[in-house]
Amino acid sequence: MTEPGRYAYDGLDRLIHERARLGVLTSLIGHPKGLAFGDLRRLCDLTDGNLSRHLAALQEGGLVEVIKRFEGARPLTLCRITEAGKARYLEYLAVLEQVIRDAAEAAKAAEPLPGPLPGAGLAPV
Amino acid sequence: MTEPGRYAYDGLDRLIHERARLGVLTSLIGHPKGLAFGDLRRLCDLTDGNLSRHLAALQEGGLVEVIKRFEGARPLTLCRITEAGKARYLEYLAVLEQVIRDAAEAAKAAEPLPGPLPGAGLAPV
Repeated sequence: MTEPGRYAYDGLDRLIHERARLGVLTSLIGHPKGLAFGDLRRLCDLTDGNLSRHLAALQEGGLVEVIKRFEGARPLTLCRITEAGKARYLEYLAVLEQVIRDAAEAAKAAEPLPGPLPGAGLAPV
Repeated sequence: MTEPGRYAYDGLDRLIHERARLGVLTSLIGHPKGLAFGDLRRLCDLTDGNLSRHLAALQEGGLVEVIKRFEGARPLTLCRITEAGKARYLEYLAVLEQVIRDAAEAAKAAEPLPGPLPGAGLAPV
């Protein structure tokens, strides 16, 4: 019952697990050519400042790259997931699936019986 | 493509989303009669101090209850998920499943083609 560390979930990478960054990475994994900063901000419903901060953390970790360039005279900030970022995010998702399986199994195993059995709830003597 | 807030995941309850607390709640949902503090600590591979801190946060949010009692002369701290805690955790898990579905769909839709097409990578003129 008490297998040590059974529910420690060390694989839940803290850099990815943050709620807003989960949204950023999910958006970017679907757009391997990258997303404009404004589109990403809208998809994740973040402020400019918040998105910038989360992108900086992800960029520092090597999970995304941020490319500033010009489209004609107009500056464009393109955000893209890296190959390493994609691999780490997919690993993270596998652990997330494990959490869901564990919880589903635990909740199912713990379903209360339809009615009280005679003597149920009494400690064995 | 840029449905506002599509990947905002507001339903990822911050109280539950913290990695250690995910482990605590998953442990407790499988033991509706409660777990002794020491067993919970081992299952989640946490220090006494960390587990106490996370339990305090969960207790303040009404998700768990912590019962101190004596078994004979021996003090026992029992940790138990509340009905409200169970409901909130199951809601949280539904959003987590949505994240996984979104990411799986996005990653699949974005699969690169088997080989480069003639002219691939060139911007349209």
